[in-house]
Amino acid sequence: MSRSLVVDVHTHVYPPAYMAMLRARKSVPYVHDPAGATPRLIILASDDDPSIPIDERGRPVDSSYYDINVKLAFMQQHGIDCSVISLANPWLDFLVPNEAEEWAKRINDDLESTCAQVNSDTPSSQKKLFAFGTLPLSAPNPEVISNEIKRIKSLPHLRGVIMGTSGLGNGLDDPLLDPVWAALEETQQMMFLHPHYGLPDEAFGGTETTNRYGHVLPLALGFPLETTIAVTRMLLSGVFDRFPKLSILLAHSGGTLPFLAGRIESCIMHERHFVANGGSTPGPQRSIWDVLQSNIYLDAVVYGTAGLKAAVAAAGGSTTRLMFGTDHPFFPPLNEKDEQWASVTTNYKAIQDSFGDDKESVAAILGGNAARILNLN
Amino acid sequence: MSRSLVVDVHTHVYPPAYMAMLRARKSVPYVHDPAGATPRLIILASDDDPSIPIDERGRPVDSSYYDINVKLAFMQQHGIDCSVISLANPWLDFLVPNEAEEWAKRINDDLESTCAQVNSDTPSSQKKLFAFGTLPLSAPNPEVISNEIKRIKSLPHLRGVIMGTSGLGNGLDDPLLDPVWAALEETQQMMFLHPHYGLPDEAFGGTETTNRYGHVLPLALGFPLETTIAVTRMLLSGVFDRFPKLSILLAHSGGTLPFLAGRIESCIMHERHFVANGGSTPGPQRSIWDVLQSNIYLDAVVYGTAGLKAAVAAAGGSTTRLMFGTDHPFFPPLNEKDEQWASVTTNYKAIQDSFGDDKESVAAILGGNAARILNLN
Repeated sequence: MSRSLVVDVHTHVYPPAYMAMLRARKSVPYVHDPAGATPRLIILASDDDPSIPIDERGRPVDSSYYDINVKLAFMQQHGIDCSVISLANPWLDFLVPNEAEEWAKRINDDLESTCAQVNSDTPSSQKKLFAFGTLPLSAPNPEVISNEIKRIKSLPHLRGVIMGTSGLGNGLDDPLLDPVWAALEETQQMMFLHPHYGLPDEAFGGTETTNRYGHVLPLALGFPLETTIAVTRMLLSGVFDRFPKLSILLAHSGGTLPFLAGRIESCIMHERHFVANGGSTPGPQRSIWDVLQSNIYLDAVVYGTAGLKAAVAAAGGSTTRLMFGTDHPFFPPLNEKDEQWASVTTNYKAIQDSFGDDKESVAAILGGNAARILNLN
Repeated sequence: MSRSLVVDVHTHVYPPAYMAMLRARKSVPYVHDPAGATPRLIILASDDDPSIPIDERGRPVDSSYYDINVKLAFMQQHGIDCSVISLANPWLDFLVPNEAEEWAKRINDDLESTCAQVNSDTPSSQKKLFAFGTLPLSAPNPEVISNEIKRIKSLPHLRGVIMGTSGLGNGLDDPLLDPVWAALEETQQMMFLHPHYGLPDEAFGGTETTNRYGHVLPLALGFPLETTIAVTRMLLSGVFDRFPKLSILLAHSGGTLPFLAGRIESCIMHERHFVANGGSTPGPQRSIWDVLQSNIYLDAVVYGTAGLKAAVAAAGGSTTRLMFGTDHPFFPPLNEKDEQWASVTTNYKAIQDSFGDDKESVAAILGGNAARILNLN
């Protein structure tokens, strides 16, 4: 029986050199090694709570974060043929410019050599690993970033870049990012937009309320909302008007962009501040639906049919822009004996439940779309 | 040709007495009367920007906000047979306890008499107006609120209450609200949950960024996210476990709850802080899907097929929990000569586009569901 190709476009690594750099740090983000226990990754300022014993702060960071063999075993366990790996947050946001420039090169070269090594060990005609590169966003000028984008294009296994929502520190509607968008457009590389900072605790009723429910509010709501806000700011500031061929892949099925797209479009149409409506502020020229159907791709990491149906409807009913992902190594099973990760099987099941009768769409979402869009040969 | 009954469950009024009270105020919220021009409603602290001339602050508030005849004309213009009117934000949040208690009674009596008067003038067998009551949430003790809930039940045209997300000031996961939930459950009345405060400007990159795009970010994203956060906090704190028969109608199709439900459920399942997963914090007992299919109703004010498809999928594929709404008098056409409001026709069209072939579902969403669920006879 022939089986569909399965490609995971949302799967993270912390290369060993990056881990070593985090281990050497004493302020957020950093890695702490408790004696005789799993290292802890303290990634957000709120995780570095002095009232929590340091051995318990942040999250455990085991070999699934940095050992590519653990990733390969996870792929085999879950029927994944090919993964497009990316550095996880916080990327290089916290480094001073010169360090960021140096580390971006080091990490991108590391990703390239890891992919090359694994693929050369693979007898199959389908290569197992590709990667999204990382950018030195704190670089002193956008040319350094653009040059790294061009260099990434020259690395045979890299297929674009992953980026957080802060850009150069002022969000993705910052006009200083135009050379970055231009370089991505010119080299025809994908930008994978991924959250990191979430929302201020005040959005959830303050820090005490936020922490009351563990990580549920920041992870379940803060992350997707951060992505949605970032891409909406790109739209409102005209990024997609100035760079109409930009391709971006949104994490977690767009955060919640597909669901809110209609409301965003309606609010734009009714906004008197915009030139088109008699105001003085330039507004977006292209509709959000056009952008969703021309520039935006979504991963299928949304854990249910409701999200998937919205994602497809937002793409004008097309299943050609949606790509399977896992978010590995995050959301491991609570019971370490579970061989299958519920976070992964939930997404597999959601795809089957949403499009089960339409085998072509299922195959496209599981891997065909990613292979075509990202040229994974 | 027989036409489906059309019911609008999301349509606001500021009764004339409430307007007069806002006119007498000089701090937010207040109404300012520029000489010879439309009055301005200054509703949020951020609208009361001293750098803006006072005659231009906030939004124009014309007779559509307070004159029930304008509402009736709007209904006729848009083919709406019946409206369930509700006081708009900020309700009574800003009043001191005794005032809030007095004003809740006055407004609920006013809503009742308005509905009774209009319906008695209507020869049709279908009554034209019903209402959601308002609560004195700053009352000094929950008994005052519960008593008003019971009194609302005795008013023939009232069908539940509208409520913002702040509750008694600490959100809807506040255990002090239990008597309120108990009274709503006991009297079998709907709670219409509606946003007001949005998100802190920091979520959007600060006040300057927020204001750069007019009201788009707070209205298009802040409002729906506020609702989503509020109902998620209710779920996480066990409100739906303690009050399993509570009925709530979520504004704007749940904010973005249908889209994020899968991620919320996955995050809960993976949250080690919760007792069910070996932690010490009580977590929710019922799944979000169960709550979406037993306790939650959604309006269809989402301006597109993507949102509607997600809303139905989140209800387990059922179209019986979704109810047409307009958000009148907000989002009027920019061109005053437009007889049809685009904000309304967009929602009509989205329902047709999503369920066009399924006439039974269209009729249910347009009015049948509301008539049945809210008993609008």
